[in-house]
Amino acid sequence: MTEATTGISAFDRDTAITPRGEGVYDADLSADWTIGHAVNGGYLLALLGRALGDALPHPDPFTITAHYLTASLPGPAAVRTSAVRTGRTLSTGTASLVQTGEDGREVERIRVLASYGDLAALPGDVRTSAEPPPIPPYERCLGARDGMDPAAIPPITHQVDLRLDPATVGWAVGAPSGRGEMRGWFGLADGRDHDPLSLLLAVDALPPTAFELGLSGWVPTVELTVHVRHRPAPGPVRVSITTRNLSGGFLEEDAEVWDSRDRLVAQSRQLARAALA
Amino acid sequence: MTEATTGISAFDRDTAITPRGEGVYDADLSADWTIGHAVNGGYLLALLGRALGDALPHPDPFTITAHYLTASLPGPAAVRTSAVRTGRTLSTGTASLVQTGEDGREVERIRVLASYGDLAALPGDVRTSAEPPPIPPYERCLGARDGMDPAAIPPITHQVDLRLDPATVGWAVGAPSGRGEMRGWFGLADGRDHDPLSLLLAVDALPPTAFELGLSGWVPTVELTVHVRHRPAPGPVRVSITTRNLSGGFLEEDAEVWDSRDRLVAQSRQLARAALA
Repeated sequence: MTEATTGISAFDRDTAITPRGEGVYDADLSADWTIGHAVNGGYLLALLGRALGDALPHPDPFTITAHYLTASLPGPAAVRTSAVRTGRTLSTGTASLVQTGEDGREVERIRVLASYGDLAALPGDVRTSAEPPPIPPYERCLGARDGMDPAAIPPITHQVDLRLDPATVGWAVGAPSGRGEMRGWFGLADGRDHDPLSLLLAVDALPPTAFELGLSGWVPTVELTVHVRHRPAPGPVRVSITTRNLSGGFLEEDAEVWDSRDRLVAQSRQLARAALA
Repeated sequence: MTEATTGISAFDRDTAITPRGEGVYDADLSADWTIGHAVNGGYLLALLGRALGDALPHPDPFTITAHYLTASLPGPAAVRTSAVRTGRTLSTGTASLVQTGEDGREVERIRVLASYGDLAALPGDVRTSAEPPPIPPYERCLGARDGMDPAAIPPITHQVDLRLDPATVGWAVGAPSGRGEMRGWFGLADGRDHDPLSLLLAVDALPPTAFELGLSGWVPTVELTVHVRHRPAPGPVRVSITTRNLSGGFLEEDAEVWDSRDRLVAQSRQLARAALA
């Protein structure tokens, strides 16, 4: 994938930020990362994460939390960052994504709180007891576009290389498993290799586990926290998402991201609203 | 426990906040919730959570994230809150715990970002697939003070009623299980019933799972996120904490809190530094 990763990928272009000074950045939210009318929350988090990585002295998001306040729209936006504390190994900061509303007033879309560090500076020890998820080989998984009416394919689906575990796609043919599980291989369509920022996209790029629980409605994210634990090796990652607690109109989605070297490179949890069927 | 809960409990007294106007509150961090020189992070989160519940129009923390910046010390402190967005069912806000450093300058201890709602307003549906953790009955678990030299008991241990699952206390006799698990019953020593604020304490009140992994050093929390999903029923809760990914000098601690009616009332995850043995 070397050629692709040396060129400018769509992901890097669409998450680009332009410094305006004093921790403020201009951005342009791309319509290429939407599904329905919604701009993907993982794409937005990656853009905010890029801004914080530029504003803080440390490059990588170790733990980043986003609260989704109002629906972001494709088009111009600004990111305001603020350093909370700068330490030797970790720096903490906040970021806010804002757009101009129809009435001309500023509307905040997302608020972020994160601590950054340097993944390259971590010791190499691995004493994890976690096991990679049971996902069939890439070629035995189902492409997200397979069998879809091209006109009905959401824009974001053209940007990613998503191959779903056949065991978690029953919802697509009206036969949800009833288990809150969604698994698959995830890469970028243009072959760009993963990095800590694209992992922020990976944890929120699969169909909602709620689909496999038999819910068909939208599942808006209230809050998403991602721990990036290692810089991912080249090649697509495996993403496993699990929901155990659907209750009171909310559910959690826990994601694990494993790289091609079988390392658990990211863990995330989000709280989302469930539209009960 | 009616008498105890109608009186003023130590937890309520020690997490009390005094409004100073404009979203600022005075507080006094109690030395009764320390272990070693550290003030317990869950106790501090409960105090911050109380301030946000007062400052925001909604009463209960649905999802609250804290980044621990510097070590809090017993004594005077202030909490500064700020509303980010107020919605119909959810309100989002930030809180900052600050103290005066030795040089007389203000030092920020903790930064919080949270969304609040009203647990009493949630629909009663429960479609969870999660199962309560396998914790023996309360009377068959081990009191945290059992067999300890009274002079060596950390202050916080006198404030809580913690009964650990014998299967997860091997570390205490030099025989850690090697599994990243810690489980037990958790209540307040004076019999105060649990509420959403005491659940913020419950998720951070057990010994570190790192002890059962054979690590003996301190495990400082970098970030802690708690989802409170239901108002807990009276009586002690069961807390189960799991670590799967000890790597690169960091580990995650996932906690589940189950109430006496077998409801999963809270889920949390924290990223902590691991001092590798």
